[in-house]
Formats: sequence, structure tokens, C-alpha cells
Amino acid sequence: MKVLLTNDDGVTSPGIQIISRMLSERGWLSAVIAPDRERSGMGHAITVDRPVRVRPLDPGMFSPDVSAYSCDGTPTDCVTIGLEALSVQSDFVVSGINQGPNLGDDVTYSGTACAAIEGVILGRPAVAVSLCVKQGDSFKHNTTAALAATAILSYAEKNGLPEDVMLNVNVPNELLRNIKGFKITRRGKRSYRDKFICLKDPQGNDCYWLGGSIEDTWEEGSDVTAVRDGYVSVTPVNLDMTDYAVLDDMLSNGAENALARSLNIR
Amino acid sequence: MKVLLTNDDGVTSPGIQIISRMLSERGWLSAVIAPDRERSGMGHAITVDRPVRVRPLDPGMFSPDVSAYSCDGTPTDCVTIGLEALSVQSDFVVSGINQGPNLGDDVTYSGTACAAIEGVILGRPAVAVSLCVKQGDSFKHNTTAALAATAILSYAEKNGLPEDVMLNVNVPNELLRNIKGFKITRRGKRSYRDKFICLKDPQGNDCYWLGGSIEDTWEEGSDVTAVRDGYVSVTPVNLDMTDYAVLDDMLSNGAENALARSLNIR
Repeated sequence: MKVLLTNDDGVTSPGIQIISRMLSERGWLSAVIAPDRERSGMGHAITVDRPVRVRPLDPGMFSPDVSAYSCDGTPTDCVTIGLEALSVQSDFVVSGINQGPNLGDDVTYSGTACAAIEGVILGRPAVAVSLCVKQGDSFKHNTTAALAATAILSYAEKNGLPEDVMLNVNVPNELLRNIKGFKITRRGKRSYRDKFICLKDPQGNDCYWLGGSIEDTWEEGSDVTAVRDGYVSVTPVNLDMTDYAVLDDMLSNGAENALARSLNIR
Repeated sequence: MKVLLTNDDGVTSPGIQIISRMLSERGWLSAVIAPDRERSGMGHAITVDRPVRVRPLDPGMFSPDVSAYSCDGTPTDCVTIGLEALSVQSDFVVSGINQGPNLGDDVTYSGTACAAIEGVILGRPAVAVSLCVKQGDSFKHNTTAALAATAILSYAEKNGLPEDVMLNVNVPNELLRNIKGFKITRRGKRSYRDKFICLKDPQGNDCYWLGGSIEDTWEEGSDVTAVRDGYVSVTPVNLDMTDYAVLDDMLSNGAENALARSLNIR
């Protein structure tokens, strides 16, 4: 197994450092290419308006036998450049360990999850790994998340993963011995409340700074509930966002003709 | 009907100018809030590392009775700030008209599509509208796209849209009289080839500039095929990316126990 490793917290994040050592010990790590700084919340953004700079990193920073690069683009840029421009040997893409959860609708906002999605688009099975650190947590159990990720990689290698599917893995911030097990889950519901701090810039312009508190809905079988209950949550994420039920409804309700008639087409 | 209008090409784009006039003539336009410059390819990115500046625009720039703002954040920031911080009255979010197609997997890369997705997350039915301009096209038929969008908004107001669904609309770059009709479609397949121009920066660092040509697969019922054939493509996009078939497979194959056993949990 050859893994391309990336993240959205940047090359110096403890999350990527710890998982890189574990992948390297198993002989699985092919290359690291990650943002030169934190790029959280970048979603599936790609850099199209300028060239993206890629710098080789000191071999001691990860593992002497592993190529490592920092990149001034987005997490998705890292994966595309790694696979398509640097031709990194890779049959898996791993993104993480993110220092914070990626649950519910976080998937599309998350640089971590979307870097893994990019792996799938480029034909590699991919896993996004997030450690569900909460504000006030005094210790980050990245080792637990790295162990969970390697277990999932072994499972995926043995059993295969269907095309078009990324595994979104969220790990409780606990010692391994306190983890209750694994749950295969669906997207849960979380919403953000009181989102903005409003302030003025030095010129008196209105500014809004995104923050806010999280409100989770506890549904059986969801990712948020699994993590709350102490389980590693594994959600299979499919890239085809077509709503086939709505598509069928619109077709059987004659939407195509109604729309055409309203513009006097045909 | 009250519409919040945004885009990813920036407030000065002809696409947003033309659709704003048509929405305003119908009394539907509540407010415009759009990026201060082009922010293509930003996906669902949100700005979390700094405050986002919002500036009121000259009333003559859109319509005198419509509030209009530029924002130095992402397209998604525009929607969140508009609905949550500026409390824009809105029961629909419209994003566009993008000056280029958003077909196949473009949805997650597209600032246009993801701004509409943000509307849905915040409880508003939403439509992303893209004009399928190709390199070398000498004229941009934004009026056709604006007419298609208003037809779809009328349809959605009359028939309702299910929760969690965004309509991704792609319009051929043609005069209205040359449009063949509407097709309700699923995500098609397009891939990008020969992605990067490789160059050196003035300090000799390797740089990669994303570009490349598009390769479409022509499948019956897909968005790319509908647009090729001269139809307006309307794809219902669902925010729940869970792959329920894979979820069920993993559960019935005993993935939860296999994973737990491999880490000696329980």
C-alpha cells in the first residue's frame, strides 16, 4: 500500500506528524504534500488565478525515505499536484489528522474532507481523519486517531472500496482504551448558532468574523451521535450529489414541459 | 418571492448584473451581496482566520430599491453574512449567472454552486445558474440564462422544493429561440486532462498553474449531455453525501466488529 498524505492544518500540525510516523513505520507512506500554513475551512477550493509554489521539505521533517513538500495552495491543490504533477506513487490518499471534528455538513466546508474527495476524483480510495477535539480539551489524542486510520486503511485494502466513495472518519479525543468501538454512520445534523462577531475595521467599515457555537441533533446512526457515545465514526461519502428521488418526481410531474412552456420554447 | 442574489465572479460580472435586472423587474430581488472580485473555484470555502469586510455599493449599481453589498470573503461568506448578519429578507437564494459551466463534479469546486448550497443549509431553497460559455465564444447569452432562472424560480415557488435540495442549472450559450427545452438531469462525468503548466518562480522554486482541457463522457440523462444537446440542464443536488448502499454493505459485512477487533477494542 502506498499512501499520499495531506491535511488542511499545514505541514507543521501535530496531526500530520503523528500519522506520518505511523504510516512510515508500516512502510505505507509514499509522500507528504500539505499546505505551508493552516487552510481550515477551504472546502474543495482550488487555486486557478495564480501558479502554486511547491517546496521540498527537509528530509528529517517527516521520514528520511519519504518525499515531503509544502505547498502555498489549498488542500485540494496539494492532492492534485501530488498525483498529477509530481506523480507521487499512491494507491490511497489520507487526509489528516484534522485537529477538530468534521461531522454533519462540515464535509463540504472541510479542507481535510475535500482533499480526500479529490483523491477519489483522481481514482484513489481516500480516507479523511479528524480528531474530535473540543474547546478546553487539555490533551490531543492524535495517536488514537492514527491507530483508527491505520485499521481502516488495512480494512479498505483487504475489502476494497467502491469507486466514488470517500471514508470520513471522526475519532473521539480519548485514549484508545476508552474508545467503545467503530460505528458505520450517516451524516448527522449540526448547525451553527450566533455565527458572527460584528466589528469595525480602522476605516469604519463593517466587518463580520465567523465563529459561533454548535448545536447537534442526536439521531440514532448519525456521525455526531457515534462520536458523542465514544465510538470512531466512519461515514461512506459519495461524490454523486444527485437527488434521484427528486429527479424522478420532477420528471413524473412534467417539470420539463412546464418549464419549456413557461418560456414558450416548443 | 424575495431573493438574495450572489455569485462567484464578483459584483461587476455581467452575469449578476443581467439577472439582477430581471429579478428586480419582477419585484423579486431583495438584496445583492457578492464578492468584491472574482472568486472562482472557491468551492464551499468559508473565511475563518480573519474578519470579512462588507461595503454597501452605490444604489445605482444594481437597482435603487435594492440593498447591494460587496464582500471581501468567499461566495459562501456572502450568503452566510447576508442571511445571518445583515438579516436580508429572503425565501430564495440565487447564485450566478456564472460565466462558465458547472457540470459533473464541478459542483463541489464551484463557488457559484456552493453559495447556493449554503442557502439550502440556512433553510432557503436555492438555485445556482451557470452559462456554459466555451473558450472562443464571441457572445455571452446571459439573458437566456436569466430567463431560464426566472422560469425555474417560478416553478419552484409554485411546486415547492424539498428540504436539502439545491437546483444546479446549466444553460447553453445560445439565444433563447435556439434552446431545445429543459432536461432534469443527473451529475455527468467530466475529467480534466494535462492539468498543469509547470514553471519556476523568480527564486527558482517549482510552480504549478492549474489549467488543462476537459474530457466529457456522453451518457444519456446526464447534465453534460443535456447541455451538449442544446437543453437547459436542471440537476437536483442533495446535501446528504452519505452512500447508504455502502453503509448497508459495511454493516452487513461486519465492518464494525472487524475494525474493533483489529485494534483489540472489546
